[in-house]
Amino acid sequence: MTHTPRIYFDNAATTPLDADVLEAMMPYFTTYFGNPSSIYSYGRETRLAIENARKSVAKNLNAHPAEIFFTSGGTESSNMAINAAIDDLHCTHIITSPIEHHATLHTVEHLQQSGKAAVSYVQLLPNGHINLQHLEELLANSNERTLVSLMHANNEVGNLLDIQAVGNLCKKYNAFFHCDTVQTVGHFPFDLRNTPVHFITGAAHKFHGPKGVGIIYINENIKIKPYINGGSQERNMRAGTENVYGIVGFAKALENAMQRFEEDSHYISELKRYMAERLRQEIEGITFNGDPFGNSLYTVLNVSFPKTEKSEMLLYSLDMHHICVSGGSACTSGTNMGSHVIEAIYKNVDRVAIRFSFSKNNTKDEIDTVVQTLKELV
Amino acid sequence: MTHTPRIYFDNAATTPLDADVLEAMMPYFTTYFGNPSSIYSYGRETRLAIENARKSVAKNLNAHPAEIFFTSGGTESSNMAINAAIDDLHCTHIITSPIEHHATLHTVEHLQQSGKAAVSYVQLLPNGHINLQHLEELLANSNERTLVSLMHANNEVGNLLDIQAVGNLCKKYNAFFHCDTVQTVGHFPFDLRNTPVHFITGAAHKFHGPKGVGIIYINENIKIKPYINGGSQERNMRAGTENVYGIVGFAKALENAMQRFEEDSHYISELKRYMAERLRQEIEGITFNGDPFGNSLYTVLNVSFPKTEKSEMLLYSLDMHHICVSGGSACTSGTNMGSHVIEAIYKNVDRVAIRFSFSKNNTKDEIDTVVQTLKELV
Repeated sequence: MTHTPRIYFDNAATTPLDADVLEAMMPYFTTYFGNPSSIYSYGRETRLAIENARKSVAKNLNAHPAEIFFTSGGTESSNMAINAAIDDLHCTHIITSPIEHHATLHTVEHLQQSGKAAVSYVQLLPNGHINLQHLEELLANSNERTLVSLMHANNEVGNLLDIQAVGNLCKKYNAFFHCDTVQTVGHFPFDLRNTPVHFITGAAHKFHGPKGVGIIYINENIKIKPYINGGSQERNMRAGTENVYGIVGFAKALENAMQRFEEDSHYISELKRYMAERLRQEIEGITFNGDPFGNSLYTVLNVSFPKTEKSEMLLYSLDMHHICVSGGSACTSGTNMGSHVIEAIYKNVDRVAIRFSFSKNNTKDEIDTVVQTLKELV
Repeated sequence: MTHTPRIYFDNAATTPLDADVLEAMMPYFTTYFGNPSSIYSYGRETRLAIENARKSVAKNLNAHPAEIFFTSGGTESSNMAINAAIDDLHCTHIITSPIEHHATLHTVEHLQQSGKAAVSYVQLLPNGHINLQHLEELLANSNERTLVSLMHANNEVGNLLDIQAVGNLCKKYNAFFHCDTVQTVGHFPFDLRNTPVHFITGAAHKFHGPKGVGIIYINENIKIKPYINGGSQERNMRAGTENVYGIVGFAKALENAMQRFEEDSHYISELKRYMAERLRQEIEGITFNGDPFGNSLYTVLNVSFPKTEKSEMLLYSLDMHHICVSGGSACTSGTNMGSHVIEAIYKNVDRVAIRFSFSKNNTKDEIDTVVQTLKELV
């Protein structure tokens, strides 16, 4: 095998683990293995690690530690929030959008099919942003207790929701608000004490932490029951022996991300801007999906290429050149069945969409290589 | 601080991670971080790791790989099985026992409270075994579609269920059978192709694997929907980016456990026998809970001491002597609210129950120290 260096532009799917995050996790693989729910001091060491992690996460999101619960990931967290809104907060109406992550859409569809909730889909603006006027109409016309579930940054096109504005609308109409923040926790400065939201979610592996661990923020004024029942872990809110290393890794990765936020976000924004500029210069007929230079997450650039025999093979061809990118989200790309997001925004679009997503580990040199390769391929 | 060596006799709560299991996991923390659901070859490496893990687990349990699904742990797996039996297999009656793990009991109670299922509790024999005659009566008198949820080895007293006999009864009466095998996967030779069971569950950290990862076995003749909705991971049965390291660790830990099964089970059985013998010789008035020398898991020895001021402090006193043991299960011991298992078997018992649970890492010397310490403390 040749050793062509791999270029990884799929950081919205998952990110490499930071070396110092792994280092922070290691003692809990080797030395401190006690069950955190044990009463003896050996368990207290791991319990302390978890509670320190919780405090750190809370501080970095400006929330109360009592509002942070560790789960197995963003998908579990979204399932938990949406199901709790129906089962425990007695919502019978869900307002969501057609461009949510499948963790939301499939959960909502499941609740609709089981007759537990009616579902309304908010309209999109031509650039894929949520039509806030339509959202207000839906809320104003809803006679039922309502959950609004809208994601903060779209994982495919990067469009950012005005979480404050949506939260205020929900407040005005007494609705509950679940915001899927899996793409923004670790990439965006949260101030949850001053944000009108009831549930947010996060996954460590999206910001250089480990896979298999996430959080749910549950606003302190909300009382719900666990989605996973059993032992009294996580203050009776999420049963199962705690994933201690994962939890320690989540907190450390978030600390890193927030400490380096100014620097990293500036650096990655510049990569995104540079990639767009180079693409415009080098490849004819490309367009950008969503609102990449407006209200958009700096990590994601979604590009459409004119449909040709060659561009339809682009994902595979890039792979042959050791370049990792996505079509739809990673969660569906195995089946390569196209993107429900691009379809919902642009309808019957006859173009090939590719998501490039960046991290602090990427460079302009890599962008040059990718743009050159794309130029040769299309 | 002095360096009194710690003695860890709480292996039913969690076990130390095997060094070679961590070694098997490490490349997925450092080199191979790709999202296993990506289409590019970098993701294929992690996908291959997961599919190899699935094959290995299936082989070690004599199941089909298509029957094995990875989850975040035993508790999630039991929640999934029981909820699926109600929601997808349309059971309206659950038969369980009062000595199940809270992952089962609280899930069942939740379904009962929400009006989705009626619940019957099977009677226990004086030694804590399930009264199979009563189970058959309950099954024979059930006019509804029924789920039987009974654990394989009780996590507190170690009593082993005759899984084959219960499975045959379920077959006879057309009931579904969920067996919580969290204490036996990795400690018991399974032959699932020849065992009449629909769901079993496992957690890696119970047999020297990592925390935060488990399995559910779903018999190939059963069609259910996911409990956690979202992406198409785990063949649409469990959404969420896969915990690759955890999955690799689960498989490696199970390989170790099954390769060393004869040797380890013989060694640990001998530790249990020796501890019982030494306790009988040295401490007056002790009794053993459950059926420790009959049909019982070799890892668990549950001992009752006469209730005195001193014995009531026993857990704490042992902790002061760097000896880790449990009262109830770890999942409730933080609150020290006593054991629902001991209470259900012995009713209003005026004794102090302590669970000693062993692993291959324990020694007879440790037992001598613990027995000597107990003698001084009571």
